[in-house]
Amino acid sequence: MSRFLAARNEGRICLIGAPFDSTTSYRPGARFGPDEIRRASQGLETFSPGQEHDLEDCPFTDMGDLELPFGDPSPALAMIEATVEKLIDQGRLPFLLGGEHLVSLGAIRTLAVRFPDVKIVHLDAHADLRDDYLGQRLSHASVIRRAVDLLGHDRVRQFGIRSCTREEYPLVKSLAADVPEIIAWAERSPCYLTCDLDILDPAVFPGTGTPEPGGISFQDLSETLVRLIGGLKVVGMDVVELAPNMDTTGVSSIAAAKIVRECLIALCRRGS
Amino acid sequence: MSRFLAARNEGRICLIGAPFDSTTSYRPGARFGPDEIRRASQGLETFSPGQEHDLEDCPFTDMGDLELPFGDPSPALAMIEATVEKLIDQGRLPFLLGGEHLVSLGAIRTLAVRFPDVKIVHLDAHADLRDDYLGQRLSHASVIRRAVDLLGHDRVRQFGIRSCTREEYPLVKSLAADVPEIIAWAERSPCYLTCDLDILDPAVFPGTGTPEPGGISFQDLSETLVRLIGGLKVVGMDVVELAPNMDTTGVSSIAAAKIVRECLIALCRRGS
Amino acid sequence: MSRFLAARNEGRICLIGAPFDSTTSYRPGARFGPDEIRRASQGLETFSPGQEHDLEDCPFTDMGDLELPFGDPSPALAMIEATVEKLIDQGRLPFLLGGEHLVSLGAIRTLAVRFPDVKIVHLDAHADLRDDYLGQRLSHASVIRRAVDLLGHDRVRQFGIRSCTREEYPLVKSLAADVPEIIAWAERSPCYLTCDLDILDPAVFPGTGTPEPGGISFQDLSETLVRLIGGLKVVGMDVVELAPNMDTTGVSSIAAAKIVRECLIALCRRGS
Amino acid sequence: MSRFLAARNEGRICLIGAPFDSTTSYRPGARFGPDEIRRASQGLETFSPGQEHDLEDCPFTDMGDLELPFGDPSPALAMIEATVEKLIDQGRLPFLLGGEHLVSLGAIRTLAVRFPDVKIVHLDAHADLRDDYLGQRLSHASVIRRAVDLLGHDRVRQFGIRSCTREEYPLVKSLAADVPEIIAWAERSPCYLTCDLDILDPAVFPGTGTPEPGGISFQDLSETLVRLIGGLKVVGMDVVELAPNMDTTGVSSIAAAKIVRECLIALCRRGS
Amino acid sequence: MSRFLAARNEGRICLIGAPFDSTTSYRPGARFGPDEIRRASQGLETFSPGQEHDLEDCPFTDMGDLELPFGDPSPALAMIEATVEKLIDQGRLPFLLGGEHLVSLGAIRTLAVRFPDVKIVHLDAHADLRDDYLGQRLSHASVIRRAVDLLGHDRVRQFGIRSCTREEYPLVKSLAADVPEIIAWAERSPCYLTCDLDILDPAVFPGTGTPEPGGISFQDLSETLVRLIGGLKVVGMDVVELAPNMDTTGVSSIAAAKIVRECLIALCRRGS
Amino acid sequence: MSRFLAARNEGRICLIGAPFDSTTSYRPGARFGPDEIRRASQGLETFSPGQEHDLEDCPFTDMGDLELPFGDPSPALAMIEATVEKLIDQGRLPFLLGGEHLVSLGAIRTLAVRFPDVKIVHLDAHADLRDDYLGQRLSHASVIRRAVDLLGHDRVRQFGIRSCTREEYPLVKSLAADVPEIIAWAERSPCYLTCDLDILDPAVFPGTGTPEPGGISFQDLSETLVRLIGGLKVVGMDVVELAPNMDTTGVSSIAAAKIVRECLIALCRRGS
Repeated sequence: MSRFLAARNEGRICLIGAPFDSTTSYRPGARFGPDEIRRASQGLETFSPGQEHDLEDCPFTDMGDLELPFGDPSPALAMIEATVEKLIDQGRLPFLLGGEHLVSLGAIRTLAVRFPDVKIVHLDAHADLRDDYLGQRLSHASVIRRAVDLLGHDRVRQFGIRSCTREEYPLVKSLAADVPEIIAWAERSPCYLTCDLDILDPAVFPGTGTPEPGGISFQDLSETLVRLIGGLKVVGMDVVELAPNMDTTGVSSIAAAKIVRECLIALCRRGS
Repeated sequence: MSRFLAARNEGRICLIGAPFDSTTSYRPGARFGPDEIRRASQGLETFSPGQEHDLEDCPFTDMGDLELPFGDPSPALAMIEATVEKLIDQGRLPFLLGGEHLVSLGAIRTLAVRFPDVKIVHLDAHADLRDDYLGQRLSHASVIRRAVDLLGHDRVRQFGIRSCTREEYPLVKSLAADVPEIIAWAERSPCYLTCDLDILDPAVFPGTGTPEPGGISFQDLSETLVRLIGGLKVVGMDVVELAPNMDTTGVSSIAAAKIVRECLIALCRRGS
Repeated sequence: MSRFLAARNEGRICLIGAPFDSTTSYRPGARFGPDEIRRASQGLETFSPGQEHDLEDCPFTDMGDLELPFGDPSPALAMIEATVEKLIDQGRLPFLLGGEHLVSLGAIRTLAVRFPDVKIVHLDAHADLRDDYLGQRLSHASVIRRAVDLLGHDRVRQFGIRSCTREEYPLVKSLAADVPEIIAWAERSPCYLTCDLDILDPAVFPGTGTPEPGGISFQDLSETLVRLIGGLKVVGMDVVELAPNMDTTGVSSIAAAKIVRECLIALCRRGS
Repeated sequence: MSRFLAARNEGRICLIGAPFDSTTSYRPGARFGPDEIRRASQGLETFSPGQEHDLEDCPFTDMGDLELPFGDPSPALAMIEATVEKLIDQGRLPFLLGGEHLVSLGAIRTLAVRFPDVKIVHLDAHADLRDDYLGQRLSHASVIRRAVDLLGHDRVRQFGIRSCTREEYPLVKSLAADVPEIIAWAERSPCYLTCDLDILDPAVFPGTGTPEPGGISFQDLSETLVRLIGGLKVVGMDVVELAPNMDTTGVSSIAAAKIVRECLIALCRRGS
Repeated sequence: MSRFLAARNEGRICLIGAPFDSTTSYRPGARFGPDEIRRASQGLETFSPGQEHDLEDCPFTDMGDLELPFGDPSPALAMIEATVEKLIDQGRLPFLLGGEHLVSLGAIRTLAVRFPDVKIVHLDAHADLRDDYLGQRLSHASVIRRAVDLLGHDRVRQFGIRSCTREEYPLVKSLAADVPEIIAWAERSPCYLTCDLDILDPAVFPGTGTPEPGGISFQDLSETLVRLIGGLKVVGMDVVELAPNMDTTGVSSIAAAKIVRECLIALCRRGS
Repeated sequence: MSRFLAARNEGRICLIGAPFDSTTSYRPGARFGPDEIRRASQGLETFSPGQEHDLEDCPFTDMGDLELPFGDPSPALAMIEATVEKLIDQGRLPFLLGGEHLVSLGAIRTLAVRFPDVKIVHLDAHADLRDDYLGQRLSHASVIRRAVDLLGHDRVRQFGIRSCTREEYPLVKSLAADVPEIIAWAERSPCYLTCDLDILDPAVFPGTGTPEPGGISFQDLSETLVRLIGGLKVVGMDVVELAPNMDTTGVSSIAAAKIVRECLIALCRRGS
């Protein structure tokens, strides 16, 4: 079997690996995510029976991975920002493969400049709305808070959150929305879609840094993403927080690869 | 992240680790359960969105682990009995972290003396009603049978059983009850709640000695426990049979820790 | 605990291990399946609460494993064909334990001769209808295509397929059926029932060569098999594609052993 | 490949599995040792280049495993004693496969009666000379102390010990001997040879309950055992403390199987 | 860190992955070897302190992996033969990364034609001199026997063999040689150097299909290969039998990558 | 068994866990090192036969772990510096448990102030002398270079280095020394001893971020450390780079715990 995710330059949608995990608070390893997503694509078909469409008919690019330094996240975020900026300027749609959730901030910062009315749709188990984590304001636990700081509450909606602090809870309740609500709220604004895969139940997806019991099924996530992509004007997206080293069965990596396949096909169908 | 389960002495509800697994018939390792539950608490928040309550507001004590000898279970059970007795005498509510299911017998023996009308509510995949296991009457497969010997059938109810022998089956059918039935049956009697985590589906909880395919989801177990604690007069409880060594993903340990968090909060809410 | 699956010769239903996996395209290891199914039977009871029947009351034979050479599959298939032929001639019902899915072809070839009106009922995540895999026509990805070549489309029905190529898709749609449809279609024809365990969700069954996210639950598979066996005239069957090395929790092996237990009891109840 | 260790009855040397590990103080799992030794024999040849002899030319019996109850070790020890007694009465040489080290006591108790001048040769990383372990006198950490109680210091010699308590240390120094010293000391007395595989370095043999860094190489252990068997009048022996679940590479099980092969060939050469 | 093994075309020495393992008799997975060797190169420096030389100064090519079909080995061998032939015709030095040991036969067949006086130097734990394995003459256990058939005994020498059958043993003794003997025997003949990594001790290299206790150290293998490459006229070589799935620590893959680095540098130094 | 490493305050030598690994370049997880070293102490005795001394007779303190933020290493280093400063002011000897190697810099910075003539003795597989790693000057690959910047070449010696870049190699050669050379060089200067456990062979110690094949044995490291501590005036030390998640056998953690035991006893013997 060959990998459907591998270096190539064929279209507007552009995959970029962001192998960074230095602010992960519990179990590191998301740095290995992008590489494993590509490897796991080897065990899947390119055809999606659910969407009745084949990835072979979807032009897309895979730029490979950025070489991000570990430790202080500022230089890594700057590299992501610069890359996303270049892609936007080329009329491309950046699709980040994490890495930890903080990498999304690199994309969001750039998009906030290029699309001043951009809205954020956030799928996750965790609210990621802490102001800081042990004093660090650049943390995977604060990434959506940084987005809120940048854009305001009105331009962020969350789906699937089942873990937060007492302090985050009121904001979590006010940002929660289901798929039709999100589509109505977004109207025709450009949207950035960020999907932390730990929204899935740990049974389905143990390979992540902070598994949170009680999540949704693969089928639910897959259908939710396809519906959101179909209903929103997505200008960038990411799929983050696969830490494949935590799951020796390889099943988490395969789930991530299948989610990426479904998103690529949905983006392609939407775009055409 | 810090652990919310760690040595402290703050309240009436009292966690005690019972790291014993010498009678485990299939895959040992439950001795590592209490330590791993504490470690895994590091990856979870103290706030429960489901109960809208924070464990920070729930005073409880964690006594750490008993140092139980392996082999013949009699001395280990005697140590558990003595500890539970002391706690009851102090007006505390003992909450055992197993270890294998046999450790519950130490608590049940003491409670049968101190609360002569105590009733047992048993959540499990397995009936645990064998009279003996290869001749051993003190076995994790006989623990509820020993409780029935002590208290009679009328004072035991079971929930979730999906595995038993032909010989156990009639008794299993007569003891089976759902949550409202259990609450009605218990009336105002003091109850001991014993939860074998293998009631969960092995997809959710592979880290256990005798996983039994076809179990319930995390959400179902969590809600069932919260409802039972809300509706019963719980005077002691346990959560047993995490064998973390069987699950290198760590997901089973995190599930156990979250169940303990939900139970602690529910006990605290009930108590106040 | 002792194993209920172990060498014995007690009845018409006859288990045979087929430890072969040389054509597996992604993750090999199904060769270890039969041995692990027997080992895992140690952790289960012989009694089925769902069927209210005990395997102890079901006479069956376990012939152990064929010693199949690896590499070119032709000699291994010839050995399976010869074994199945001998069993059919003895009036027995062959029940293969895979091994990869290609081993089914050995049984199907023999049954096509001995039961000229045999029909195939295929449970799987993957269509297995490719004409060849990298030029190899004897491949686990082509096994049902070889059956279709032999018997025609009209004598094959599929259940649970969620992955296929674009080329396979029209045939997949035409062969798909649910349980009542399969039973109606089969009428009184002799049926061969082939169950690729990767029909299960990878959360439940990660221990397989090509896990495909989005599958069915253990309970659904178990009930489907019991209903099919109850409604069809099964003259042979198999359970394939456990690759236990991919799942260090052992949960996949236990799921496979429980499926085999349920099938043996259902075959026995049907037969009596 | 087929297993050279499997049920058969061909000679005087008689393998018996003793799958018991209830007194293991650290990491349980030695119960799975005998089964894994047999399985791992599949990956090895029957021919020993070192001894220039083939196991095919060595008649031996494999009785399979005793079905030992877990928990209190007394009944398990009684079953081992009875089995060894019967084998000695048949003129056979019992060769136990552990299981934890305590199982040796069953053999030693019987041999002390049948061979009143029996001597014990003990290979191990640990002294196993504690009087009790948390009060339990029947413990894997006390097994050689029980032998010393039974036979006196003069009839026990140790090889390879690198871990003990301060209290054990004087006795450890007095019992230590190298191979020529042991052979000279034993003279023509009947000897029981007990080999705890954790004498090996954990790099070579991680699959054990209490790995102790700084051990000997496989080649050293293999040659030591062959020399001891060649120089002593061995009337019984054991190889214990493989806990295969601790080593997912399988290498520990293969090392144990090769040690058993070398011992069987050496016993056979000595006997003929 | 970046990978020093990755697609590039810079020199005469040419790496080709041969991800095939269908004839593996015990534990499959060598198909994943080439990919893991490249990935593991990420954790190593390009500089060799032992050779005081940097791989950065060694031009070499990495063609990536052949896409070999599984099952019958004949088409896979034909693809390897054709590839090696093409490389030889281009004046290149083929360096195969296995895959199982049978892949060497593809190279040997071609070299026997292009270099009629080619000699084979074989490093391994196993003799690989069986005439067939369960009837299959194309097997990893027969690969050197096929070379002997093709070239005669006089043109093959072995190093490190510690496992064979009784039947193979006389030939093993006659082919055994140490490094100076091999260099003297080879004279100025073109040599094919084939290195089965299971020559290493399983402590160092558990990630292989048939680990054989009692092997050599990493340092010994590394120095042996450097000396052989320095003393022979190597026209092709391979490094085979890494099965990375058997070793979740990743250490086997890193050892293989470092061996490849040392060989590339030694070939480069020899060549310049 | 109980842990000899656990919270206590008994003496001048003071253990502090430094669970930080954000700059790890290859495989993260050293953050789990301190906790696992304590846990693994459970499987070892307190008595050292090699030093004929018992840890029970050695007063020492275990402060537990610092709560270090992940990401930018500056605040974590500042916390380590402040802690070490406080300990030095109390007349204590700080003994850090890593964490990645960068944590040593926190100690070295403080010691360079408090002991202006301090010398550094560095045991490691890797030189750690890079000026930066992908632009980050605070990196585990640059930690000894930062020490050289601070103190000059003359005050650093290295032992065991087997991996470096071409650029580092001249400095590596000039800093290399054996034990007697180090003791002679140090004279009566205060020394900081930093031990990266990856100096061990990966067979012995796979549980680390960048395993480097070809290392020393456990016995060699243990004896080297005992000799160095006996011959130097150690004013602080560390043991770093256990990444226990990479080694599911637990053997690496046990090796680390035994090294810590031997160092504590040696420090205690030296001090008294």
